[in-house]
Amino acid sequence: MAVGIIATLNVQDGKQAKFEAGFAKAQEAVKADEPGCLLYSLCQDKDDATTYRVMEQYADEEARKRHASSDAVRAALGGLGACMAGRPELVEVNVIS
Amino acid sequence: MAVGIIATLNVQDGKQAKFEAGFAKAQEAVKADEPGCLLYSLCQDKDDATTYRVMEQYADEEARKRHASSDAVRAALGGLGACMAGRPELVEVNVIS
Repeated sequence: MAVGIIATLNVQDGKQAKFEAGFAKAQEAVKADEPGCLLYSLCQDKDDATTYRVMEQYADEEARKRHASSDAVRAALGGLGACMAGRPELVEVNVIS
Repeated sequence: MAVGIIATLNVQDGKQAKFEAGFAKAQEAVKADEPGCLLYSLCQDKDDATTYRVMEQYADEEARKRHASSDAVRAALGGLGACMAGRPELVEVNVIS
């Protein structure tokens, strides 16, 4: 069964460009290393430019765990701590259809 | 610019199968009538079987509006009122990447 995550990320105002550039590196790492990642899309709230949502889908639980333990993704996102306004909120989901 | 919605739908416990069957009809309508809909995926919280999330992406604002005003989608989802435990919560987003 495919599974997913909806992540909510709060970024400090003014740090959006730096955050998006760093996230793009994580997306490159995912594309290169994670064939089981079906969707890893960065979105920004229309009404709040400091709130981002990541729509994530994986072929199965194993692929999600592989993403969570990816050194390349961790390296890309790890540099973004200074841009953040709090800890990410993650909702784990099962993809129904 | 591509745009999206993350919808949170609370369903009455025990009504999940009926809800999912009705939602599948909405997905069929979207597939048939909305070439500008890029993603319309139903997910269910891993830790709460009464909470569903819909990951939606559209090619542009016009395609999102077309979805919102679709009679076919409204007909499919309109029959689900008796399954719901509250009003949907919608977050509109811009798709960054």
